[in-house]
Amino acid sequence: MTSYRYKVTLQYDGSQFVGFQIQPNGRTVQEDIEKALKIMTKGEEIKLRSAGRTDSGVHAKAQVIHFDYPVHLPPENMKRALNSLTTDEIAIYQVEVVDESFHAQYSSAGKKYQYRVDINEVMTPFKRLYALHHPYRIDMEALEEALAVIVGKHDFTSFCASNSGKEDKVRTVYEAKVERDELNGEIIFTFRGNGFLYNMVRIFVGTLLQIANGLRPADDMKRILEAKDRNQAGPTAAAHGLYMMQTYYDKREATKGTIFEQTEDAE
Amino acid sequence: MTSYRYKVTLQYDGSQFVGFQIQPNGRTVQEDIEKALKIMTKGEEIKLRSAGRTDSGVHAKAQVIHFDYPVHLPPENMKRALNSLTTDEIAIYQVEVVDESFHAQYSSAGKKYQYRVDINEVMTPFKRLYALHHPYRIDMEALEEALAVIVGKHDFTSFCASNSGKEDKVRTVYEAKVERDELNGEIIFTFRGNGFLYNMVRIFVGTLLQIANGLRPADDMKRILEAKDRNQAGPTAAAHGLYMMQTYYDKREATKGTIFEQTEDAE
Repeated sequence: MTSYRYKVTLQYDGSQFVGFQIQPNGRTVQEDIEKALKIMTKGEEIKLRSAGRTDSGVHAKAQVIHFDYPVHLPPENMKRALNSLTTDEIAIYQVEVVDESFHAQYSSAGKKYQYRVDINEVMTPFKRLYALHHPYRIDMEALEEALAVIVGKHDFTSFCASNSGKEDKVRTVYEAKVERDELNGEIIFTFRGNGFLYNMVRIFVGTLLQIANGLRPADDMKRILEAKDRNQAGPTAAAHGLYMMQTYYDKREATKGTIFEQTEDAE
Repeated sequence: MTSYRYKVTLQYDGSQFVGFQIQPNGRTVQEDIEKALKIMTKGEEIKLRSAGRTDSGVHAKAQVIHFDYPVHLPPENMKRALNSLTTDEIAIYQVEVVDESFHAQYSSAGKKYQYRVDINEVMTPFKRLYALHHPYRIDMEALEEALAVIVGKHDFTSFCASNSGKEDKVRTVYEAKVERDELNGEIIFTFRGNGFLYNMVRIFVGTLLQIANGLRPADDMKRILEAKDRNQAGPTAAAHGLYMMQTYYDKREATKGTIFEQTEDAE
């Protein structure tokens, strides 16, 4: 049967979901979208694939999915239909019909994540689901020193949830930076790389906040990285500060502005 | 019995409350704070007074309350206690011990409100409880023309919920402006005045959005104002875009930058 592959870019507020991927114990983003598709096909089940899973409470400013749909709908109509059949917690904002060689996960050349930390003395109520409240000392110089350590191609075993299986733990981080947003009383971490291990960004942040606070010296980052031992790193920072920001399908775009060979194969 | 008057400034996310003021059918901000005070006094009930009520879903970036407390606690301790005894939806961020002549409502010389409108084509999921989604034409010039009409001392009967009693409907609006936030795809209305009638800001906005969209001419604002008839104005805009921003206790501050006599008595 003929079908057409759709690439869809969406945002979601992860607060009320138990994560992206379908699971038995709670509402997921995937389930909501697959239900919408089932309504559109009048009962035919369509499975979607995503650029990556996100855990309960994690947000996405740009998650990418693909699925094969039996009818060639104009992208604008697909967008409108999916938006009208999902709640306001999910916003479909770009739809393209793509070649069937495109795969949301396997075609990826890299991803970008951000992590928001609210450093105001009293937590801003409007941010309670959208940023980690952490009203402690932030030593920006120490943070920058530690962030520089994780840029590059490394075995990130120390920054991977210990229950996450036996696959290769080598990844390349193209960018790791921190910015201070004085107006909103926030610090924002940005990480861009060819791929991220399970909980990698959250363990980076949990460790970095200990460094910012003086609980660890900045050069601990190098020791932790080299130890290849999850127990050496800091805690996993809370889910609700984390945002999936972008998935790159073009290696040059993923590595833009970095010193990395743009011809290097994605791992 | 001796008691000390506390002036407390707080923020709250109105989403999960049925409003500020205690009522039988749901959780209110007042109730949460009075419960916290009752824990602090080990059972003594303390009634608080607020600068103004807010409806279900309406937010506050600065609500002001006062209450009389039997013990002279350092303000910092009162702040910490109230923050620890309320949920993250409420943030106490300023506490002062004030003269007992101070009254959160009656000492007020004016208030400021803002209203956020998300004009992105697809609603941003993170804003669904914090801005009205209105992806339609926004004629800024027409808005500015209409906003100019409501500045000044007027009978605002047309912009007052029709079930709101028989009191005097004359108020002075010191400032009425609109700004466009291109980065976030929002327009933000600001209203500052000596007082606001029930639903006044939301009816302003409901009417202004019809003007922005071309459903009404800009000069309709003058006609509506003069009609002194709620039925002439537009709909009441949704609660969740509205923010109580400030209460002024100094007439010069309330009227700052305006052409109004700063010696005029507050009404």
